[in-house]
Amino acid sequence: MIWRGVIDRYKKYLPVTEATLVVTLHEGNTPLIYSDVLSRLLSAAVYLKYEGMNPTGSFKDRGMTLAVSKALEAHSKMVICASTGNTSASAAAYAAKAGIKSVVLIPKGAVALGKLSQALIHNAQVVSIDGNFDQALQLAKEIAEKWPVTLVNSLNPFRLEGQKTGAFEICDQLDGRAPDFHAIPVGNAGNISAYWKGYKEYFKNKKIYSKPVMLGFQAQGAAPIVKKRIILNPKTVATAIKIGNPASWRMAEEARDESGGLIGAVTDKEILEAYKLLASREGIFVEPASAASVAGILKLGRKRYFQNRRSRKKKIIVCILTGHGLKDPDSALREIKNPQAVPARLDAILAAVKI
Amino acid sequence: MIWRGVIDRYKKYLPVTEATLVVTLHEGNTPLIYSDVLSRLLSAAVYLKYEGMNPTGSFKDRGMTLAVSKALEAHSKMVICASTGNTSASAAAYAAKAGIKSVVLIPKGAVALGKLSQALIHNAQVVSIDGNFDQALQLAKEIAEKWPVTLVNSLNPFRLEGQKTGAFEICDQLDGRAPDFHAIPVGNAGNISAYWKGYKEYFKNKKIYSKPVMLGFQAQGAAPIVKKRIILNPKTVATAIKIGNPASWRMAEEARDESGGLIGAVTDKEILEAYKLLASREGIFVEPASAASVAGILKLGRKRYFQNRRSRKKKIIVCILTGHGLKDPDSALREIKNPQAVPARLDAILAAVKI
Repeated sequence: MIWRGVIDRYKKYLPVTEATLVVTLHEGNTPLIYSDVLSRLLSAAVYLKYEGMNPTGSFKDRGMTLAVSKALEAHSKMVICASTGNTSASAAAYAAKAGIKSVVLIPKGAVALGKLSQALIHNAQVVSIDGNFDQALQLAKEIAEKWPVTLVNSLNPFRLEGQKTGAFEICDQLDGRAPDFHAIPVGNAGNISAYWKGYKEYFKNKKIYSKPVMLGFQAQGAAPIVKKRIILNPKTVATAIKIGNPASWRMAEEARDESGGLIGAVTDKEILEAYKLLASREGIFVEPASAASVAGILKLGRKRYFQNRRSRKKKIIVCILTGHGLKDPDSALREIKNPQAVPARLDAILAAVKI
Repeated sequence: MIWRGVIDRYKKYLPVTEATLVVTLHEGNTPLIYSDVLSRLLSAAVYLKYEGMNPTGSFKDRGMTLAVSKALEAHSKMVICASTGNTSASAAAYAAKAGIKSVVLIPKGAVALGKLSQALIHNAQVVSIDGNFDQALQLAKEIAEKWPVTLVNSLNPFRLEGQKTGAFEICDQLDGRAPDFHAIPVGNAGNISAYWKGYKEYFKNKKIYSKPVMLGFQAQGAAPIVKKRIILNPKTVATAIKIGNPASWRMAEEARDESGGLIGAVTDKEILEAYKLLASREGIFVEPASAASVAGILKLGRKRYFQNRRSRKKKIIVCILTGHGLKDPDSALREIKNPQAVPARLDAILAAVKI
């Protein structure tokens, strides 16, 4: 079957009609990769859902295809969003495909290089705000309320509708079952909410016969849900989840509580360790925020969280890797040393490397 | 059907056995996206094969899964390559997944930022050579001949075997037919050779009933095949095809001649125009080299190349977009102006953008 994007594949579950003009870059259908290393470490079957393999390099494309298609259906000529980077890249790309304009508000100095280059090359009008993400979002909302511009942040309900298709895909890829645990980074908290919605819908439609325990992970310095208070100056190397007042706070708590799960915090050190483990052992390059889900299950594993269960059958854990490492090459380059420069001679090379 | 990489999907056509331990990051299965803009401009049906959606962001993964799987089968403990960036990123990632070591020789100052970060984060031993790609390749070959290290440049025959699966996929995605024209950037010339091999095999196996005309495009400043001579100091903004003495020179000429096609040159200006058109009109971000295929068909279109045919039925043109734009964020940032910084106030934003 040819893949033509998440709306085409899952339209039965989405608020579209035959009249919806689908704006797609063939997002979704991302690989679910079995991780030998993590499975061994956790005595479980661990799969990595590599959402970095969406067209703009992050999971945001799943929601953006629907948000922009619906904006077009409503004859909108412009979309706006506030963004730490991934949303803006996606909004700009889908707006370009749709032939409409886009405006992006980014917090000054807080957006990774790759993401900034994306919004700009896709012709968005990008404004850098002297403030944090939460302020940028407030301003985007105000503009969308007062002018004929469609807000495509996750407050736009179509965004989460599109994102829930990630849950459908995982269950389909597991041959009609849900994982036992679903681990996911939590920033603005839309994605954990969307996945939980997806699992519940598939369960209701009898496509699966159990639902996963939802495990969300915030960065220690940007963990409002864990700390139960707004963080005014969130700090973390994981820029994509550097958010102090998540828009989907309540929904994320519901996902946690209804599923019997948890939302925990991981340190930047733990995030970067998981980041390097994925790249050096699994061949998977992610942006730092993505590694929060892996850091989280490794932390729970050390507390024997996954062993404290009755069944001896191996549990299935799915980790969402939200974005591609190429989004943030600077983070990678900070973690490693630059290559040695040598003359173009055999002896010089052999002196520089271990063969 | 769950996608588990190109070896799993096309093993019937590949030199693997049940004993081959497949090293995969679920490469392949990349989208074939219909381009409204190009189809209109060329009065044809133009599809973009977005190879940037492979795990390491380029088409190299198709060949690397096979090259590294076969290296593992031969009990190799290390792979080596020379690279302008994409091959090294792929080699490093697949070696990491396989649990073996990798060595990468790059020409000094000639590798885009994203690609360099990839090789390093995937734990390759990277050496920057004071010389060009062709010298680096010569040295890599020498090392592979004298030490127990597997060369994974496209001289490794398994690389092209893997890459030919791109042709299979296109035909499958077109519901069992080949395109009329296949446009592709030409650097080291392995990819055009691999695609032609793939089309011929599918034709022989009666999976398709015609073969495409192969249209290869080199950058004007790095066009040895067009100019029929080695270019000692190739120059182009398209670093991925900045190669003066292609390893698969003869095979590329065969693909051209057997298919009744051509290999032409496009200027950096034409490449960057196509690059910006793809990003701003199609929502597709590629690295500059990828845009050579689009620049090429636009150039042929201006000469009415596609209209000079007898049939009135619209011709199908497939353009290979070899790598993701995130591989080379600097190229994007050079092409656009930086975002304006404004205070976090509504009036300041409205003064900065057109709504």
